[in-house]
Amino acid sequence: MHQQPAETGGMCSSGASAGWGLLDYKTEKYVMTRNWRVGALQRLLQLGIVAYVVGWALLAKKGYQERDLDPQISVITKLKGVSVTQIKELGNRLWDVADFVKPPQGENVFFLVTNFLVTPAQVQGKCPEHPSIPLANCWVNEDCPKGETGTHSHGIKTGQCVVFNGTHRTCEIQSWCPVESGTVPKRPLLIHAKNFTLFIKNTVTFSKFNFSKTNALDTWDSAYFKHCRYDALSSPYCPVFGIGDLIAAAGGDFEDLALLGGAVGIRIHWDCDLDTGGSDCWPHYSFQLQEKSYNFRTASHWWEAPGVEARSLLKLYGIRFDILVTGQAGKFGLIPTAITVGTGAAWLGVITFLCDLLLLYVDREAHFYWSTKYEEAKAPKEAANPEW
Amino acid sequence: MHQQPAETGGMCSSGASAGWGLLDYKTEKYVMTRNWRVGALQRLLQLGIVAYVVGWALLAKKGYQERDLDPQISVITKLKGVSVTQIKELGNRLWDVADFVKPPQGENVFFLVTNFLVTPAQVQGKCPEHPSIPLANCWVNEDCPKGETGTHSHGIKTGQCVVFNGTHRTCEIQSWCPVESGTVPKRPLLIHAKNFTLFIKNTVTFSKFNFSKTNALDTWDSAYFKHCRYDALSSPYCPVFGIGDLIAAAGGDFEDLALLGGAVGIRIHWDCDLDTGGSDCWPHYSFQLQEKSYNFRTASHWWEAPGVEARSLLKLYGIRFDILVTGQAGKFGLIPTAITVGTGAAWLGVITFLCDLLLLYVDREAHFYWSTKYEEAKAPKEAANPEW
Amino acid sequence: MHQQPAETGGMCSSGASAGWGLLDYKTEKYVMTRNWRVGALQRLLQLGIVAYVVGWALLAKKGYQERDLDPQISVITKLKGVSVTQIKELGNRLWDVADFVKPPQGENVFFLVTNFLVTPAQVQGKCPEHPSIPLANCWVNEDCPKGETGTHSHGIKTGQCVVFNGTHRTCEIQSWCPVESGTVPKRPLLIHAKNFTLFIKNTVTFSKFNFSKTNALDTWDSAYFKHCRYDALSSPYCPVFGIGDLIAAAGGDFEDLALLGGAVGIRIHWDCDLDTGGSDCWPHYSFQLQEKSYNFRTASHWWEAPGVEARSLLKLYGIRFDILVTGQAGKFGLIPTAITVGTGAAWLGVITFLCDLLLLYVDREAHFYWSTKYEEAKAPKEAANPEW
Repeated sequence: MHQQPAETGGMCSSGASAGWGLLDYKTEKYVMTRNWRVGALQRLLQLGIVAYVVGWALLAKKGYQERDLDPQISVITKLKGVSVTQIKELGNRLWDVADFVKPPQGENVFFLVTNFLVTPAQVQGKCPEHPSIPLANCWVNEDCPKGETGTHSHGIKTGQCVVFNGTHRTCEIQSWCPVESGTVPKRPLLIHAKNFTLFIKNTVTFSKFNFSKTNALDTWDSAYFKHCRYDALSSPYCPVFGIGDLIAAAGGDFEDLALLGGAVGIRIHWDCDLDTGGSDCWPHYSFQLQEKSYNFRTASHWWEAPGVEARSLLKLYGIRFDILVTGQAGKFGLIPTAITVGTGAAWLGVITFLCDLLLLYVDREAHFYWSTKYEEAKAPKEAANPEW
Repeated sequence: MHQQPAETGGMCSSGASAGWGLLDYKTEKYVMTRNWRVGALQRLLQLGIVAYVVGWALLAKKGYQERDLDPQISVITKLKGVSVTQIKELGNRLWDVADFVKPPQGENVFFLVTNFLVTPAQVQGKCPEHPSIPLANCWVNEDCPKGETGTHSHGIKTGQCVVFNGTHRTCEIQSWCPVESGTVPKRPLLIHAKNFTLFIKNTVTFSKFNFSKTNALDTWDSAYFKHCRYDALSSPYCPVFGIGDLIAAAGGDFEDLALLGGAVGIRIHWDCDLDTGGSDCWPHYSFQLQEKSYNFRTASHWWEAPGVEARSLLKLYGIRFDILVTGQAGKFGLIPTAITVGTGAAWLGVITFLCDLLLLYVDREAHFYWSTKYEEAKAPKEAANPEW
Repeated sequence: MHQQPAETGGMCSSGASAGWGLLDYKTEKYVMTRNWRVGALQRLLQLGIVAYVVGWALLAKKGYQERDLDPQISVITKLKGVSVTQIKELGNRLWDVADFVKPPQGENVFFLVTNFLVTPAQVQGKCPEHPSIPLANCWVNEDCPKGETGTHSHGIKTGQCVVFNGTHRTCEIQSWCPVESGTVPKRPLLIHAKNFTLFIKNTVTFSKFNFSKTNALDTWDSAYFKHCRYDALSSPYCPVFGIGDLIAAAGGDFEDLALLGGAVGIRIHWDCDLDTGGSDCWPHYSFQLQEKSYNFRTASHWWEAPGVEARSLLKLYGIRFDILVTGQAGKFGLIPTAITVGTGAAWLGVITFLCDLLLLYVDREAHFYWSTKYEEAKAPKEAANPEW
């Protein structure tokens, strides 16, 4: 007998409510239990969520910021310095920047010659292969199949077995003669390269935020750049690097690198928070030793006589500098903020769900809570046949 | 008469509840209907959401991972091989790496000469323009306005109309003489370039995770690199490529490319899952044919006599290799996980909302459910004038 | 006495409900108040959220799209043009592309020579330092410590103080002699470079979507490229640029740049919406003036006599072109859509929470609403000792 009137009330009230407008405020009905265990747990978890969202996601990780992760990058480099060498083939010789930097036009990857092996005057012809080459040594002509060549050989075998330097017998090849004889100087020729200086001008542009910055402020007097040296502690914003310091910072030993060559990566990282006006937006330099040995061959050609081309072959050892620029910029954005906070809110829902599980299935009074939380609603026609 | 006491009860209970503390656990009150249609739909949709979040977003798409999408990249290349050519201007001639790779220092974009057109000894002077040039042909001097020049012409017209090779009449120009006569060899001169080998050393550094990897494990013996060849199936981790194989893999025909030049892209893609310790972090190579024709001109200058500069002009055809490295690394991150799961939870709410629409506006018993779901609450002063 | 039966009902109904199955549809019970103020506020905020999600996040910001932010990029450039110069050292001289572009092979960073200072025939030897160098001037030999060298000096001091050009007294140095005397031509030598044309072929590949596009449609007839010129308004898709126009667009004055050199950035930005089939996927060019002065030194070496190496030193002024390609592509993705909409849904929850605060703590009838929203549930054992 209890249900009926309540339901009638329900009916007519709903009947009345049918007229109610859009502006009625509807809010979830809650069941309030004195179960302090679950309550405490819920509050605890809620605190956790809020702490995570505000403390970690928003503040620590700057979750309120939009990010631009690949800036446009422009790098210009300039090396300065001179060095003198004694080479028997070339005599006492001074080297300046026009001689030892390749390519000369200041790109972000360049090569500083520190040592080399020169084969001064090669012409096309026939001569014995160098014994160090696989399959070069021979006793009789049969050891030298005509036309044979290998990946590492200097030329193409003519089929003859001839004497090399009066010591070995090696296959004759058609090649640039005489062939390079691999005796690299025991001490680096351009040892003074240690004192050379490298000027790096790097500009990053974060197009998404239309923000641009260079590592060498134009406002500073150019005299400063003439005399300053980069130092991580004392002058971290000076873009002029001593080659020696740079190698050391990369964890390499200059003498070793200068002798057999190597590759050094100069990483410039920009991490800019544009909400603070980019005032903290400065390059961070780091240096890695990428290779412990590096060399390549190049040649300069000329005409010794009309129709007779000659070249001087250079096997260059040196340090390859590879300037890698990375950067990211962040600026307040509506969408990332909405996502960070929104997901936080969603998690609060998850928590209530979890606590409900405890309350409804674990708690001693679970059965009672269940019946209170879930109110049965029998549609009238079902209710037609009453329970009693 | 029923409402009153209930409400009074409500009042006093709330009066009592006013004293209740923070630790009371509040949970939404639910109306439970036996409407299995909507119920089934809801369960179905919920399953869908869970499947999507767990199966797709989390597992398939690794939604629990933070990503680093632009690694720092360093590439070093080295070509090996020799080739012999017969050229009437230069005689029987052997080419080695110092001759046919530009630039020589092993960058990530380089050019392998496979064919060329040489104009051996040019000096500054006056000579007839080549007939193939637009507006070069003439009958009388008036056809050759003095000082005129075009984008494609070899020089600047002197105003004379002269005989070219005894066959054509063309405008005389001031230029490097004689002008290049465009007869490119019918068969590539460096056909043997097919057998050359390219060694690629590529290092990627994901700075966000402080993880670095190279495509050539240092631990392997260097002898391995001397003899292995890359093959997608048998030896996918060998960084030494046969030029011929490489062109074929890119879908090009070596003879054609060697004749008129071309550009080939070598793409190295890294997809690293650092949660597995990066053990699966290996380069994936792919090759694209970018250009079917490629050439450029370069010249070597020298002094034929004091004050008389000469140059030998080379129009170089060849294959331009462009090594493009891309990579991404993923590692478990709290924030992405929270976002993926959180949005999933939010969707569960959306589902309930949709099902409610069905229940409250579509279902046959909609009117009843409406009244049960929404319990009116009249503030006392409104309730002051009762309905009857 | 009111609670008991209700509760019994609750008990037995729950007892019955224990048998109910998974397919019962449970929906939150709502309290409906006629509080139009809060109601209006809620509707307003809800509208706001929906507007933000649909209008801003989804449509304006394309929040339904997955993004690929770093495409693979390949750039090929080609310069065309000739220019004539009068230089006293080299005589009346014509320059073509083989002379004034470095490096010649058409990379994305290249240098166009527009002016230079030539020191035609240098050999190794001893000669007076140039007075402009710091610490070069001297009165007596003591002013020139033997072996001293500076970052900017041309060589290494021999310890002598000698006469330079009959005017100054400067330290003698071992160096390439004679030293370069810094008198750069007052007017650019290659002034005609203004009329040169630059062809840029740029291909971007968005590997995530396996989509590739080039700025020069292959389908167009090559004749078009021979004659078209880029113009932001009339022909924005022509990849041939007049150097003069280009400098002007970058906001530079060609004469100034040609005289002392400079660096110009050519930015190509791709913003592709692949949901529309990439039909709108076109490059957008922009030009920035990066440097107002740029030069470097290079030298060509030859053998004047056996063992006597000579070089002609060139200090090249010119324009450095730096082609920066950036791009992004977007395509419909399930996950981003789910996240955008999901967070929106979560925000709706936040709104209800905020409105509840108003209703329960600010509203005049707050006390009443509180008691209606929160229905007490006393577990039986607590209810054992009744309130009265």
